Amino acid sequence: MLRQILIHTVARRAAIVTLIQKGAVRGICHSQPCCSSDVELTSVRYPGVQRGSYSQLSDKHVQHFKSILPKERVITDEDDIAAHNVDWLGMVRGASQIVLKPKTTEEVSAILKYCNAENLAVCPQGGNTGLVGGSVPVFDEVVISTSLMNNIISLDELSGVLVCQAGCILENLDSYLSERGLMMPLDLGAKGTCQIGGNVSTNAGGIRLIRYGSLQGSVLGIEAVMADGEVIDCLSSLKKDNTGYHLKHLFIGSEGTLGIVTKVAIQCPPSPKAVNVAFLGLDTFDDVLRTFKEARSGLGEILSSCEMMDMLALDAATTNLNLQRPIGEFPFYMLIETSGSNGTHDEEKLTSFLEGLMGSGIIHDGTVASEPSRIKLMWKLREGITEGLLHDGYVFKYDISLPHNSFYAIIPELKTRLPAEKVGRICGYGHVGDGNLHLNITTPKFDPAVLKIVEPFVFEWTSKLKGSVSAEHGIGFKKTQYIHFSKSQSSLNLMKDIKKLMDPKGILNPYKVLPAQH
Amino acid sequence: MLRQILIHTVARRAAIVTLIQKGAVRGICHSQPCCSSDVELTSVRYPGVQRGSYSQLSDKHVQHFKSILPKERVITDEDDIAAHNVDWLGMVRGASQIVLKPKTTEEVSAILKYCNAENLAVCPQGGNTGLVGGSVPVFDEVVISTSLMNNIISLDELSGVLVCQAGCILENLDSYLSERGLMMPLDLGAKGTCQIGGNVSTNAGGIRLIRYGSLQGSVLGIEAVMADGEVIDCLSSLKKDNTGYHLKHLFIGSEGTLGIVTKVAIQCPPSPKAVNVAFLGLDTFDDVLRTFKEARSGLGEILSSCEMMDMLALDAATTNLNLQRPIGEFPFYMLIETSGSNGTHDEEKLTSFLEGLMGSGIIHDGTVASEPSRIKLMWKLREGITEGLLHDGYVFKYDISLPHNSFYAIIPELKTRLPAEKVGRICGYGHVGDGNLHLNITTPKFDPAVLKIVEPFVFEWTSKLKGSVSAEHGIGFKKTQYIHFSKSQSSLNLMKDIKKLMDPKGILNPYKVLPAQH
Repeated sequence: MLRQILIHTVARRAAIVTLIQKGAVRGICHSQPCCSSDVELTSVRYPGVQRGSYSQLSDKHVQHFKSILPKERVITDEDDIAAHNVDWLGMVRGASQIVLKPKTTEEVSAILKYCNAENLAVCPQGGNTGLVGGSVPVFDEVVISTSLMNNIISLDELSGVLVCQAGCILENLDSYLSERGLMMPLDLGAKGTCQIGGNVSTNAGGIRLIRYGSLQGSVLGIEAVMADGEVIDCLSSLKKDNTGYHLKHLFIGSEGTLGIVTKVAIQCPPSPKAVNVAFLGLDTFDDVLRTFKEARSGLGEILSSCEMMDMLALDAATTNLNLQRPIGEFPFYMLIETSGSNGTHDEEKLTSFLEGLMGSGIIHDGTVASEPSRIKLMWKLREGITEGLLHDGYVFKYDISLPHNSFYAIIPELKTRLPAEKVGRICGYGHVGDGNLHLNITTPKFDPAVLKIVEPFVFEWTSKLKGSVSAEHGIGFKKTQYIHFSKSQSSLNLMKDIKKLMDPKGILNPYKVLPAQH
Repeated sequence: MLRQILIHTVARRAAIVTLIQKGAVRGICHSQPCCSSDVELTSVRYPGVQRGSYSQLSDKHVQHFKSILPKERVITDEDDIAAHNVDWLGMVRGASQIVLKPKTTEEVSAILKYCNAENLAVCPQGGNTGLVGGSVPVFDEVVISTSLMNNIISLDELSGVLVCQAGCILENLDSYLSERGLMMPLDLGAKGTCQIGGNVSTNAGGIRLIRYGSLQGSVLGIEAVMADGEVIDCLSSLKKDNTGYHLKHLFIGSEGTLGIVTKVAIQCPPSPKAVNVAFLGLDTFDDVLRTFKEARSGLGEILSSCEMMDMLALDAATTNLNLQRPIGEFPFYMLIETSGSNGTHDEEKLTSFLEGLMGSGIIHDGTVASEPSRIKLMWKLREGITEGLLHDGYVFKYDISLPHNSFYAIIPELKTRLPAEKVGRICGYGHVGDGNLHLNITTPKFDPAVLKIVEPFVFEWTSKLKGSVSAEHGIGFKKTQYIHFSKSQSSLNLMKDIKKLMDPKGILNPYKVLPAQH
């Protein structure tokens, strides 16, 4: 078996050619999967949610917006609005009648000042790739799209600090940086569509957090507009700035409920000179954990991703998207990536790490890629799971953080609880290095009976283990009633007080993040 | 010259023996330098600062504190209190009549609840190693010392997450972790005395931020007590937890003005298996920048510190503390540290990096250490500067962030502005990798004429370059009137609103961080 992995390693240039699939590039998986009008209106599917006492959009409002923006950036055509009303997963759909497309901070400020004065609720929207219904209106909120706020403002190539507008697409930023020897400190499946302002507003995690840390560490500064139109300029591009409260963190991860992020300054690390990806097969989840431990120790500073997926999760990508599994069939797979400044050193570390795992019988099969095109194909297997699952029908998605020793136990538990004839697939994958499990249950279509078995069970289970009911996706619209499983009442009270302080009329992204007031 | 550096490299086992000095260990430099009573009272030196309308401490209050804490933890003896009233630099001195030493969160909560009800101002105090007068009372505030809150609560060796009480000393935590293959993600000169709660409350930076990032990234959770005694439990020990607003950041860097941090959960990286330190001599500051650029590229992921010091800064350590300069005399020096998982690889990278610099004539002399005892001596040269400067007399200290291309220009500028006969030394050192300059001016004793020339000039200069007037030391008591040089009025207004929300009576660490209300 050691021979097999070494053959894979040596023969890496030829090993994964069979994986090549036309058009298989990262980002594509976030194209819109469904026709907007097929999706049930949120107000129908969730009859318990009541519209707030906001004003209704009138002609007067539309005319005023046309005095702030050129009329082609005030969208009122129903067909043009449709895609802005529905989320990528096709789970929630709002009924907004207007989409505004500002290009500058001043325009965002003027829009919000007016909406606040007129008591019009707004829904800030970036790339609309969120998975918890946070980026689409629930009722008829005014959509403020940042898609035209896509200028790069500056890059300091020595310090690696990039300053840009909120609407820049993550992949575009990464391409711009890669030509200058730098990279974005975050990467995720939706990179071809998602916007940096949305990434920051949702505190997006992604596949390289284990190496480059969270956005809370790498975002150096933010400019945001508050509900009343006041611009909060915390756009420091300094690595260190201890002058007063760190207000930027009020906007990182608050999902547009405290302000609309308009500009971001972010610390970008140098591009690695060498990248390798190993795809491994394992028998048990204990072996996954042992492999993670060995990777942390043996690969050390060059470890840039440590992902796991179980057999059914990988199968969602291979079967439903017609991708080829690069190694034999195993109960568990891992994708381990290294990024470093010296290819020879990195290869030595990786080979030694893999030989150690083979020697101790932890892994049984694996393959390694080091060429960018093949690395992309390896990643497509992991990142394609999200889209692959959608092909099963409806997906009950959970994104939980759990302690490592209890990371996977919920999957077999759910298999005993859910009647086999009702569900298509119960599977898990995710960022094992960060303790973040993506738990997914697929059914032919939305099934309230399945929902009843799964919720709040999943959240109670997670809470008992002191995990998080939303690791990286956020609370959005769909999880507001479960936030208390991860946050104490005193914390929730303080959050509500801060919301009231910064957005007294509650116009910013209502019905999201915080549970409704009682 | 290449020969010289290689000789240094090969002969590293013997090279720095001469540096050995009795008792020269890190941390010692933060022992109390002066007799408390020598320091002028803050209320005398700063007559413009008015005591707030807080209650005066009475016997009734003392008796009540004795009902909350055992009487030996309610300190009222003047001699015992003295050291708690004066800062380490001997620049400010308060007149508190009581020091409370809680051991638990519940005790802190009971104390604050009572102080809030009784309108008694409090000053939270950790290791009292701050450099901006933030950790000592200004008038007669009740000192709440966290020094007895020093329990380690848990360590998950697989994920590297440490949970502990706020009063744990940084060096003790690091020692505990090092026995388990882990390390603290921050390190600073005061490590032998400073406490993790103080580090977090001041968002301490330190010498390894370039590698392990800021506390905003590595602190996973916090428990804090608000002014009214309410405990805010955000003590998540998960790497990812996107459930609501990230309240912990309200306590990171707010210097005890929004709450008292009682527990911390922090992500600890694995200890490196190999550490090397290079000490280099350079002719110009441009060469310092070129070296930093080469280090980022050539040392990449193993670069763990990139420090610079000018000739007069190093001289403060060597002359005043009787340490030996390990290489010839140069206008600039750099200390570059690598930390990695493979000693052979690291040495190859470092040698190639140094050979490249020598080949292009950027550096002219240098020495390398890889043994822990010798590395410690190298670091003593850099970390001893702070203490060394104090031996000159009085120190005007500035801690500013600047763009790299303007990093050092303020030093020659100040040399033209300040009359040579009035000042001892104008020098600069700091974390060049993070754009953080420690600018120091020494005089035989406090000299208002020098102060007048230097302030607000330094802050105006920094502000013009869009730098930060406090990179890592914080605002504390000494810089409140200069915060507006780095923060916009709208940001300051929001900070004041948050302060009012969380501490309506303003009892928590008054006269600090935010400028007085007008």
